[in-house]
Amino acid sequence: MTKDLARKLVDVGMGRLEADLCIANAEVVDVYNRTTFLTDVYIIDGFIAAFKGKVRARETIDAKGRYLVPGLIDAHCHIESSHLSPSAFSDAVVPYGTTTVIADPHEICNVAGLDALDYMLKASENIPLSVFYMFPSCVPATPFENAGAVLLAGDIEKRIDNPRILGLGEMMNYPGIVYGDEQVYDKLESAYKRKKNIDGHSPAIEGNVLDAYTACRITTDHECATPEELRERVRRGMYVMLRQGTACKNVTTLVKGVDEGNSSRVLFCTDDRQPQSIEREGHINYGVNLAIKEGLSPLMAISMATLNAATCYGLSDRGAIAPGLRADFFLTEKLDDLQPEEVFILGKAVARGGKIIRKAPHTVPEKVSGMMDVKDFSAERLKLKLSSDRVNCIDIIPGGVVTGRSIRCVKRDSEGCFVHDPGMDILKLAVIERHHGTGNIGLALISGYGMTDGAVATSIAHDSHNIIVIGSDDEDMAVAVNELIRLGGGITMVKNSKVLMSHRLEIAGLMTDESEEEVVRTLDEMHEVAEAELRVSPEIDPFMTLCFMALPVIPELKLTDTGLFDVTAFKHIPNEAE
Amino acid sequence: MTKDLARKLVDVGMGRLEADLCIANAEVVDVYNRTTFLTDVYIIDGFIAAFKGKVRARETIDAKGRYLVPGLIDAHCHIESSHLSPSAFSDAVVPYGTTTVIADPHEICNVAGLDALDYMLKASENIPLSVFYMFPSCVPATPFENAGAVLLAGDIEKRIDNPRILGLGEMMNYPGIVYGDEQVYDKLESAYKRKKNIDGHSPAIEGNVLDAYTACRITTDHECATPEELRERVRRGMYVMLRQGTACKNVTTLVKGVDEGNSSRVLFCTDDRQPQSIEREGHINYGVNLAIKEGLSPLMAISMATLNAATCYGLSDRGAIAPGLRADFFLTEKLDDLQPEEVFILGKAVARGGKIIRKAPHTVPEKVSGMMDVKDFSAERLKLKLSSDRVNCIDIIPGGVVTGRSIRCVKRDSEGCFVHDPGMDILKLAVIERHHGTGNIGLALISGYGMTDGAVATSIAHDSHNIIVIGSDDEDMAVAVNELIRLGGGITMVKNSKVLMSHRLEIAGLMTDESEEEVVRTLDEMHEVAEAELRVSPEIDPFMTLCFMALPVIPELKLTDTGLFDVTAFKHIPNEAE
Repeated sequence: MTKDLARKLVDVGMGRLEADLCIANAEVVDVYNRTTFLTDVYIIDGFIAAFKGKVRARETIDAKGRYLVPGLIDAHCHIESSHLSPSAFSDAVVPYGTTTVIADPHEICNVAGLDALDYMLKASENIPLSVFYMFPSCVPATPFENAGAVLLAGDIEKRIDNPRILGLGEMMNYPGIVYGDEQVYDKLESAYKRKKNIDGHSPAIEGNVLDAYTACRITTDHECATPEELRERVRRGMYVMLRQGTACKNVTTLVKGVDEGNSSRVLFCTDDRQPQSIEREGHINYGVNLAIKEGLSPLMAISMATLNAATCYGLSDRGAIAPGLRADFFLTEKLDDLQPEEVFILGKAVARGGKIIRKAPHTVPEKVSGMMDVKDFSAERLKLKLSSDRVNCIDIIPGGVVTGRSIRCVKRDSEGCFVHDPGMDILKLAVIERHHGTGNIGLALISGYGMTDGAVATSIAHDSHNIIVIGSDDEDMAVAVNELIRLGGGITMVKNSKVLMSHRLEIAGLMTDESEEEVVRTLDEMHEVAEAELRVSPEIDPFMTLCFMALPVIPELKLTDTGLFDVTAFKHIPNEAE
Repeated sequence: MTKDLARKLVDVGMGRLEADLCIANAEVVDVYNRTTFLTDVYIIDGFIAAFKGKVRARETIDAKGRYLVPGLIDAHCHIESSHLSPSAFSDAVVPYGTTTVIADPHEICNVAGLDALDYMLKASENIPLSVFYMFPSCVPATPFENAGAVLLAGDIEKRIDNPRILGLGEMMNYPGIVYGDEQVYDKLESAYKRKKNIDGHSPAIEGNVLDAYTACRITTDHECATPEELRERVRRGMYVMLRQGTACKNVTTLVKGVDEGNSSRVLFCTDDRQPQSIEREGHINYGVNLAIKEGLSPLMAISMATLNAATCYGLSDRGAIAPGLRADFFLTEKLDDLQPEEVFILGKAVARGGKIIRKAPHTVPEKVSGMMDVKDFSAERLKLKLSSDRVNCIDIIPGGVVTGRSIRCVKRDSEGCFVHDPGMDILKLAVIERHHGTGNIGLALISGYGMTDGAVATSIAHDSHNIIVIGSDDEDMAVAVNELIRLGGGITMVKNSKVLMSHRLEIAGLMTDESEEEVVRTLDEMHEVAEAELRVSPEIDPFMTLCFMALPVIPELKLTDTGLFDVTAFKHIPNEAE
């Protein structure tokens, strides 16, 4: 708020100045009292000035008794998971009533560090969606791989005073907290000094470890798995998020732990939501609707998705429909199934009937384009020489990101190199460092992907986002890698040395400025091709599965650019079995 | 929070470091979930480290299953109303479980401006009670009197960055807001720039005036009179306070407007609570207990008096019992009648069985002592010359601070001066400017006080706190005024030119560093003397009534140092009736 704005709002309220807009006859959702009331809402300069009264407006929209709901807030998301640039992401989610997101640019910062953060800030500056950021706390995620950047406490100090950076992003390194890692505490201190939030990430921890973690005043958690865990975290002062992502979904489970007593400490988030999920189901409204179907009162659910998130993150200019707040809201027919018919941000209609009215302005991703620094690459480098034909094999488990492991016997050629056997579902997996031209290539063997012939490669490979490629044939794999380098990142499929189809992700190898519709169309078609042409197992998502095979914090065997990694033993192991 | 403290808390939680204290077997009130649970609470360096677990402690207190309740927060009070210095106030309220207050030093700042604020800050620095302040927004309250200081926006800028100043104090000047007073908006801007709170004061306003007032993002209101007003204010984003002061009490009325939907937006406060009320009834716990008696669930009421206040004022280190928070709490037998048996602040026992364990350290009130700059005073100056014997008379109305008015015929002497008639209940009232030696004296006539013989004077006279004196005889009145000047402020009673008894208020003429017990004993005795010796009407409080006779914002006739004031017409009028 500023005094000049306050003056204008008061002038409108007192009838001395004409409002820009009036939403008349709206059944306003009052999240403070958790009730609704019929009124007119007057807006000037993007803010709400007054309710019903002796006020004039230049333009009036008759809501005809429909519900006017405060703009929804996604309390934690990674925009990168949508494959969309911030502007295309805005176009995708705003029609569903999401008007504010708190995003952790953890993925792109793993690729490009502060340049990535600066790009994300700039690219979301002048778009309808309000985007706030948390400074990623864990870049890189582990020391067992090479990411594009290392962000230390000193880097946090350089940016955290930005008013759009609300604090420190999800603190995944809970061992660093409970065992006293100096760097981790220096990062916490940056947030403490500014009284900014610290997002948590504490799957399955409990008892005194949870005490220790929360004693550091970690503000939120979005990794609860049970109603009991929710209550234990709320008890320690955390705001807990009900998450409805594409892979991780816990609204229906966690909602059973929410009651009148603790509902003011519960928020909604999407975390990682793929573009197809957004297009087909919606965004935060989908989670809210699901919670309502599970029995949560609509007014409680809406308060959680609006006021609570605003309170948690200190966003005092939003989260409700009241004088002095931003005119971010939407009209909907039903309160128990939020399907926004008309969405307003700062008092301007921005989406109607599920479609954006005008596309958000695109920001050229200068410093985060073409980030493919791969040296010395050739098919030759994919050769996997083995000293034994008994190997450790990564076993894909459908439906999750955890892998199994097995010991298998494989074919070798005269030089001792692995040879693909079409009768056996064992493929070669490679992770190629792409950030610093180190020439690092990690190689391993993997089963469960199903592909009989060809290669699939992507530059989305959590959390370091090196290139990951799977294939039956070194030549196809090399073509796929080279195609990604040419595209500046993306997903590609190759067969018989020919590129079948690609999805270009030119922004840091993670995102594109194509529209959600285009991205969804491409991905849908690629899924069909993967199954029809490459015979990838229909039980798995050919691309998302691949993205998680390089993540060395999720059991059991994973591959990084520095080699095969045993997550349980927390060390690298050879491909040859003991 | 700091990283060093966080480290220590974690070390205790992980069993690597011994805690200072363990409160064992406590039924902890979990205000986040609104439930209770049996646990042990471990404390180090004044903060809570962990619950039950493999933790050691140097000292253990067995709670034997009693309830452990977070320290109560008074969301709005004027310490001056207790007549006690901050340290004596701490001693008085801490035994009732109040561990934090948000105080508006409006009264003392009317006397001594920034010096007063600095004194209040310093005097509450090293006492058990946490005292935060709101910068008084309306000093002086009106331009129709001379206060000791004028505080402008520039003064606010000088102090508002102090972390113990949480924002702008109760904005009583609502006409200034709705009619666009420049100075008022400059004051608001000081709070806006720091994202600090602005306390409200909006009795009876509604509709578009309330819209305009709340559009300025006024954060709180403690002047609601009905459940409907409460809901209307909450609807506009205000936190509403249930107030239980000595004169203004609305817990029992307002609690009917609180429900599961809006309870997270409701707080408790005392506003103005006299020392006798504190000693006989309690402090915030009294309001909480009253709300519970009226049907509010104990857990909801406790959450309102703790977590909600902490959330509203951004006090993220308190408001609950959880790891990482201050160890401010108390043990009590019953949850539906909070009678603290042992109170802890920063993990130290500070009160037991309703008594403070060790008195809080006193700060010498250097710059705010002996503030009695009265020039040219003598009984002579109290002469009230009238050009007619028909006069405007202030009529005291028992039980409130509003006055009536009447036209009366009085006796005059040969010079035309008013003469007291023992058969007629009309006394002389004088307000003597005491801040700048202006020599201003306002004179008027008043009925309803009942006194037959003598004089009563006090330096508490809202809001400018000049000396106010009432009497039947100029000589007695002069003795009373001179006694106050000698004492440096207080309350005094005089008869036959002799001081009967005095209550010394040496700190700015408003407060004393005597203990609450001493003050209550003195005041009780003075009440008896006033009735027995001076024959003050038993229907009124002889001192509180007097304190409000100079407040020119409450109808109908009042007296300031510049003369008789018609509050309805908002102008001075002569003593002679038309």
